[in-house]
Amino acid sequence: AKLWGGRFEESVTDIVEKFTESISFDKELYKHDIMGSKAHASMLAAQGLMSASDRDSIVKGLDEIQKKIEAGEFVWRTDREDVHMNIEAALIDMIGEPAKKLHTARSRNDQVLTDFRLWCRDAIDRILASVKHLQVALLTLALKNEGLIVPGYTHLQRAQPVLLSHLLLAFVEQLDRDAGRLLDCRTRMNFSPLGACALAGTGLPIDRFMTSDSLGFTAPMRNSIDAVSDRDFVLEFLSANAIIGIHLSRLGEEWVLWASEEFGFITPSDSVSTGSSIMPQKKNPDPMELVRGKSARVVGDLVTLLTLCKGLPLAYNRDLQEDKEPVFDSVKTIVGMLEVSAEFAQNITFNKQRIEKALPAGYLDATTLADYLVKKGVPFRTSHDVAGRSVALCVAKGCQLQGLSLDEFRSISPVIDDDVYGYLGVENAIKNFSSYGSTGSAPVSDQLEYWVARLEIGTK
Amino acid sequence: AKLWGGRFEESVTDIVEKFTESISFDKELYKHDIMGSKAHASMLAAQGLMSASDRDSIVKGLDEIQKKIEAGEFVWRTDREDVHMNIEAALIDMIGEPAKKLHTARSRNDQVLTDFRLWCRDAIDRILASVKHLQVALLTLALKNEGLIVPGYTHLQRAQPVLLSHLLLAFVEQLDRDAGRLLDCRTRMNFSPLGACALAGTGLPIDRFMTSDSLGFTAPMRNSIDAVSDRDFVLEFLSANAIIGIHLSRLGEEWVLWASEEFGFITPSDSVSTGSSIMPQKKNPDPMELVRGKSARVVGDLVTLLTLCKGLPLAYNRDLQEDKEPVFDSVKTIVGMLEVSAEFAQNITFNKQRIEKALPAGYLDATTLADYLVKKGVPFRTSHDVAGRSVALCVAKGCQLQGLSLDEFRSISPVIDDDVYGYLGVENAIKNFSSYGSTGSAPVSDQLEYWVARLEIGTK
Amino acid sequence: AKLWGGRFEESVTDIVEKFTESISFDKELYKHDIMGSKAHASMLAAQGLMSASDRDSIVKGLDEIQKKIEAGEFVWRTDREDVHMNIEAALIDMIGEPAKKLHTARSRNDQVLTDFRLWCRDAIDRILASVKHLQVALLTLALKNEGLIVPGYTHLQRAQPVLLSHLLLAFVEQLDRDAGRLLDCRTRMNFSPLGACALAGTGLPIDRFMTSDSLGFTAPMRNSIDAVSDRDFVLEFLSANAIIGIHLSRLGEEWVLWASEEFGFITPSDSVSTGSSIMPQKKNPDPMELVRGKSARVVGDLVTLLTLCKGLPLAYNRDLQEDKEPVFDSVKTIVGMLEVSAEFAQNITFNKQRIEKALPAGYLDATTLADYLVKKGVPFRTSHDVAGRSVALCVAKGCQLQGLSLDEFRSISPVIDDDVYGYLGVENAIKNFSSYGSTGSAPVSDQLEYWVARLEIGTK
Amino acid sequence: AKLWGGRFEESVTDIVEKFTESISFDKELYKHDIMGSKAHASMLAAQGLMSASDRDSIVKGLDEIQKKIEAGEFVWRTDREDVHMNIEAALIDMIGEPAKKLHTARSRNDQVLTDFRLWCRDAIDRILASVKHLQVALLTLALKNEGLIVPGYTHLQRAQPVLLSHLLLAFVEQLDRDAGRLLDCRTRMNFSPLGACALAGTGLPIDRFMTSDSLGFTAPMRNSIDAVSDRDFVLEFLSANAIIGIHLSRLGEEWVLWASEEFGFITPSDSVSTGSSIMPQKKNPDPMELVRGKSARVVGDLVTLLTLCKGLPLAYNRDLQEDKEPVFDSVKTIVGMLEVSAEFAQNITFNKQRIEKALPAGYLDATTLADYLVKKGVPFRTSHDVAGRSVALCVAKGCQLQGLSLDEFRSISPVIDDDVYGYLGVENAIKNFSSYGSTGSAPVSDQLEYWVARLEIGTK
Repeated sequence: AKLWGGRFEESVTDIVEKFTESISFDKELYKHDIMGSKAHASMLAAQGLMSASDRDSIVKGLDEIQKKIEAGEFVWRTDREDVHMNIEAALIDMIGEPAKKLHTARSRNDQVLTDFRLWCRDAIDRILASVKHLQVALLTLALKNEGLIVPGYTHLQRAQPVLLSHLLLAFVEQLDRDAGRLLDCRTRMNFSPLGACALAGTGLPIDRFMTSDSLGFTAPMRNSIDAVSDRDFVLEFLSANAIIGIHLSRLGEEWVLWASEEFGFITPSDSVSTGSSIMPQKKNPDPMELVRGKSARVVGDLVTLLTLCKGLPLAYNRDLQEDKEPVFDSVKTIVGMLEVSAEFAQNITFNKQRIEKALPAGYLDATTLADYLVKKGVPFRTSHDVAGRSVALCVAKGCQLQGLSLDEFRSISPVIDDDVYGYLGVENAIKNFSSYGSTGSAPVSDQLEYWVARLEIGTK
Repeated sequence: AKLWGGRFEESVTDIVEKFTESISFDKELYKHDIMGSKAHASMLAAQGLMSASDRDSIVKGLDEIQKKIEAGEFVWRTDREDVHMNIEAALIDMIGEPAKKLHTARSRNDQVLTDFRLWCRDAIDRILASVKHLQVALLTLALKNEGLIVPGYTHLQRAQPVLLSHLLLAFVEQLDRDAGRLLDCRTRMNFSPLGACALAGTGLPIDRFMTSDSLGFTAPMRNSIDAVSDRDFVLEFLSANAIIGIHLSRLGEEWVLWASEEFGFITPSDSVSTGSSIMPQKKNPDPMELVRGKSARVVGDLVTLLTLCKGLPLAYNRDLQEDKEPVFDSVKTIVGMLEVSAEFAQNITFNKQRIEKALPAGYLDATTLADYLVKKGVPFRTSHDVAGRSVALCVAKGCQLQGLSLDEFRSISPVIDDDVYGYLGVENAIKNFSSYGSTGSAPVSDQLEYWVARLEIGTK
Repeated sequence: AKLWGGRFEESVTDIVEKFTESISFDKELYKHDIMGSKAHASMLAAQGLMSASDRDSIVKGLDEIQKKIEAGEFVWRTDREDVHMNIEAALIDMIGEPAKKLHTARSRNDQVLTDFRLWCRDAIDRILASVKHLQVALLTLALKNEGLIVPGYTHLQRAQPVLLSHLLLAFVEQLDRDAGRLLDCRTRMNFSPLGACALAGTGLPIDRFMTSDSLGFTAPMRNSIDAVSDRDFVLEFLSANAIIGIHLSRLGEEWVLWASEEFGFITPSDSVSTGSSIMPQKKNPDPMELVRGKSARVVGDLVTLLTLCKGLPLAYNRDLQEDKEPVFDSVKTIVGMLEVSAEFAQNITFNKQRIEKALPAGYLDATTLADYLVKKGVPFRTSHDVAGRSVALCVAKGCQLQGLSLDEFRSISPVIDDDVYGYLGVENAIKNFSSYGSTGSAPVSDQLEYWVARLEIGTK
Repeated sequence: AKLWGGRFEESVTDIVEKFTESISFDKELYKHDIMGSKAHASMLAAQGLMSASDRDSIVKGLDEIQKKIEAGEFVWRTDREDVHMNIEAALIDMIGEPAKKLHTARSRNDQVLTDFRLWCRDAIDRILASVKHLQVALLTLALKNEGLIVPGYTHLQRAQPVLLSHLLLAFVEQLDRDAGRLLDCRTRMNFSPLGACALAGTGLPIDRFMTSDSLGFTAPMRNSIDAVSDRDFVLEFLSANAIIGIHLSRLGEEWVLWASEEFGFITPSDSVSTGSSIMPQKKNPDPMELVRGKSARVVGDLVTLLTLCKGLPLAYNRDLQEDKEPVFDSVKTIVGMLEVSAEFAQNITFNKQRIEKALPAGYLDATTLADYLVKKGVPFRTSHDVAGRSVALCVAKGCQLQGLSLDEFRSISPVIDDDVYGYLGVENAIKNFSSYGSTGSAPVSDQLEYWVARLEIGTK
């Protein structure tokens, strides 16, 4: 019989039991459920709602159960519905009467949210570590290839030369905001719902501040109905994950492009590549394709949760049981994506010679030519036009900007002088960049130093 | 070593292997993978690309493997990546050389799509059966309660009286279109990709029509690149599922409302209800709440797949490995939702007395009054106004429309006569409905007959 | 005062009026609203619910109003809420009493759905025309470049050589299924809700078959509650659009890649390119980037509509007013995407010389070598291994497969003979493909003929 | 000719121009574009890149243009593509040469992001004001109805009695976290991209700190590639909005339920209700239905933006032009939802008598009975069972818990004594709640005081 079965005369049908069970996935919460129960029992004892010896039996029993679970010896029973009932019922089986007092001044409604917030808090810490790990991998790659110039793209058309390290730091910056979002989410979620009971609180003399403290929460939540009904903390968490997912999908796209024969910028090592069952010559950057692909999953998880919560009246509705799997999936997916991206970063080689050979194509120095003209006092719109016509001449002639003679330049704009050649070519272009945050050698060097210090990677 | 490992010198790292494996979920395809391989081997033999005895060994070996899988004795190996490689490698282990010929003129790209289309075809058939099962349950409920009048709502405000059976048939109609969408999807998806190989087809003399036929496909797909790269068949499938999910979420909302103390229309039996861990009096319609909630999941699955496919270049990309789990989840969820809804329908009782007592509230006959006036020749806009003012008078007096005296009616409109009372009250209102598809007794009776015949439930 | 204002004493506040109005967008339905009203009036007259002269005044008045709307002279009033009330009120202003009879046996609930289904039916026809237009553009491009070999990709790695025309036909195939989905949707949606009234039908002697016929519907819907409450026809429509959007996003990605300096396969004409406000040399394939980007929008529109409908009880709820804008946006976006893709297809040139020069890279003929070995009787898994090791040798030597000497080949597999050179190189590889639907010259030529006939483009 | 047209020989076709234009929606940014240009010009002058008199002409010209725009006299031209080009070109038309210098050391890439961040910053401030406005309206409603007891629900089944003010404060709490998310987003987004130029920065001696300061940004962004390519600031913004939307959809559901005949808790005034075109008696809570419905839209907007950004390579891609409309729509929708919810809150009356009459139903005091037993030393699981069996007895007898005699109680549990009646009934139950954050009179009074002070509404 169910522990809540007092007024029930019939048990649920098999179809219903199978459809409504949650033990197949919410057992993931076991550690935090036990943690919460121990804090709750200690509080009940401190408040005189339970004897010290009952508390001790409960704590000891729960520790035992945790050991059994972690040893794979605990039998999860579907007829006991969920992780809470499985553990409580096992505790009753094990220690008898005292266990029946554990659920005093507690409902599964506040219990599951306590577990879930604790779980999410740990999950955020795990993701934060993985974010930093990837930042370090990217920074290390940037340092290893300092000085390497690659084409910068807009519209996937070559635009201007950039330092590879500058480009890699763009991803480090993104990840930094990602971490910020997770931290804000963690701060906002770290309040204790325990003691909200079903939705209304209780008349028993509990101490919510004590359980909040002992579980590391900032404070108990101020409103019991809010505590059991809202799920904004997971919506915010999955939003943050979705944004990380989008960021990594862009990194994935970038590296898949770079690994193509056409770009040829990087060679992933065999240890992060896979082959084809039919084409013997293939070597595919699979991990980064999957990173790109798995971003879809974290977006889907977020949409599931938003759709789930839409239009639900207060307070707890059983729909909300569906809040866990998308979160578990999102966390597992994001951690995997971050880890494998770091692994990939550690296993690619940049093909410097090939990049250098390909660099001249695309008139990457055309903007520098325009800047040169501005420095000579030509209004920008006119400079842009002159540079545009110079490129058109190059296209016609099949040469680079450096390949135009001074006469040819002057036929387009008489302002151009001999010193123009000091601005042309990608190396000159890179040297020319000087603004804060730009891709010039000096600004990028500053940024590398900044990140070496921020990420404490010890050496530059 | 991997079967594709010819040109590889290093094996993938653990992180990469774990992140890129698909065996944990794609083993779900084993039956269809074996079915496809048997058809492929038979064709290879028929075309002289394999000896009859090799074919026989292969077919026998595959049958053996299937038995082992179904007996739970097959060991799935992560280092063998996916279901295809696991089965092929096991076949090589088992029968040796001949097995090495199985992958002739085939790539995992066309193989997995053959498996997946076969799997989806079966899944659609399974869902279609569940759709019909729910339709029958709803129709049975409608027949059992024929004649019962309930309030019809718009804006969740009482609008007009309707026959319960009429209302239940609205859901039967929705499910009918749901089935139509699945059938269309099935027809469009039932073409064979086998023989498209990696993306370009093959130079070996295969017979794609033979494998297509033997696997029950309509025909081979016309374009090998299309065959391996598109996933529109699953996008369409998950769209159809998402729409079913939305339909069921509305049924769930309806029944959760009806089961509330405030509505009080239905009492679910204990066998489809659950209780509370803290509130002893509670009896909750959990299965229908979860039906409503799980609709979010099928929406999320669809979004995952749409996001996944967005912006992928031709042909196969590893991202597409992520196409399976959302489909598996969507199918499992929808089947569960359909089944449990049917179970619920079979386990509710309508509280006729309570419904009858509550029916008078809400002026459900006001529109019938307006229709009465139209029949007397009053333009509708004026009739609407008269009926509106009659209601206002009732609100002031605290009575029903039937409670107004003829004098009171005439003070509002002199056209009203004694016969008006034959139109007022919900029973009269129901009698009055006569248009095709309306909630009148006769039209609803016609519809019930129609559905009894369509769903072949034997008796009315 | 509102036309429905009989029982109301106060008018709505400005904030509410502004928030709840729909006239700013639903005026888009004016033509279909008038069409529906004319059919309704004719039926009312035929059924004796209105005089012939009233009907004539109404029809004439509505024609007048339509003319005014199309001349931009009609004043839409927010205080008249929506397109239905605006037109009806204007009709009353114009022709007086008879207009008050138009809303007999009709509610805005069935009226708006009649309008909306008619609008969607037209929209589908418009999209179908655009789909065909793009198919023709792609086929034309394929014919123009018949025989051109390009690298085929999997994992964005070069895989096997394919004929460009084969690749373009893959998109033609996708679009064909897209059209199929729209047609199925059109068939399923083309039923008449008119006469369902608010939700229950009516007691007035209307003829729903007559209005259904005159509006070109297949039949009236069988259930009045279903008719006013379900939105699955738009969910299906937007799903079909979303899938088209995803297909076009993939075409967009493909062409953006091809237009890059690195791929360099195509040069878009200036007439479909844009420049940069800062970089004078840039020429960007903007339209196809936007095609890729706008796919997100049609996905978002679908999600909006799914989320909207989730968990709504029967029958009409005001939430459903929000069903129109996503549909309008989705239709406009998809038509734009299809049109601009066709425009782009008509304005690109393939850079044959550059493609030919780049073709040898990537060992595209490695699979052909494996097939060669299979033809010699070597089991495929062994052939794959031999070809893989041949490629590894080439990588070490820095040559193509054709560049290996017979001795070198034989050192890997003694089965290889002089005739191997007839299989190597991309031209030989293409010649070698022969299976149905493959990229061989003959099969592709068959497919081109098939599509020329199907799309009736007259000449090949 | 386009301002970027130097190297172009042909202008874009009409279809392309229409498809790629953004002026129809991005003119919304005009004020912030002008603000940014003025700051940029001042900086250019300070750095010697422009004369003081050129700067003055530019600033004066821009002010003029702003006035014209706000007076509705500015002609937006589609052939000038976007808001930036429209304003710059108009400035050139107006003041000539000096205007051509404005785009020095700036690209549309950094310009549009400067505009967009400024616009979003303002939008967040606008939403924050609306959030507070709704909190005040809810708090005022709570104060006005202090002491009113309503049923609290879980699973939409009556669970325990709660104070209405407690329940309303649950929404105030949600909104508070919503505001927190927006503030965090604002802080994270408030960095200046200006000076990142196309993607690489510039070689001209600009001062990014100066423009950052004068536009109220915290600092310039550290990485120019990151600055022009990332859109996480809008993803975060739309996530925050989506969560607000979900919260409001739940408020909408709650109030739509309460306004139903069945619940009958509230009567909205006529000024926030609408009627039916066919049913004269109807009075619908439309605004809150639309609030619920429009939540779908903000979810869709978020999905659009996530899908848009997925898989885009660095840096700017034209796809990203699609980032604006979802943001504009999301902001407009959320502000409308917040405002109309506040309006609704100010225009509802609670039907105290009806609520009081309905309160006894549902055994809301059953948990209090269980708590009573716990206080007597009975283990909770046993107490729960006793209370459950007491309810079962009541159901059989058709009475309330108070209606059981002491003997009847004792037949179930001998521990129960005369004092039990001091715990039964909803008033006693409410009195009994005492825990922090619970629905007891004292804790709720504390919370009301807290919020009166926090929201500074002056009086309690």
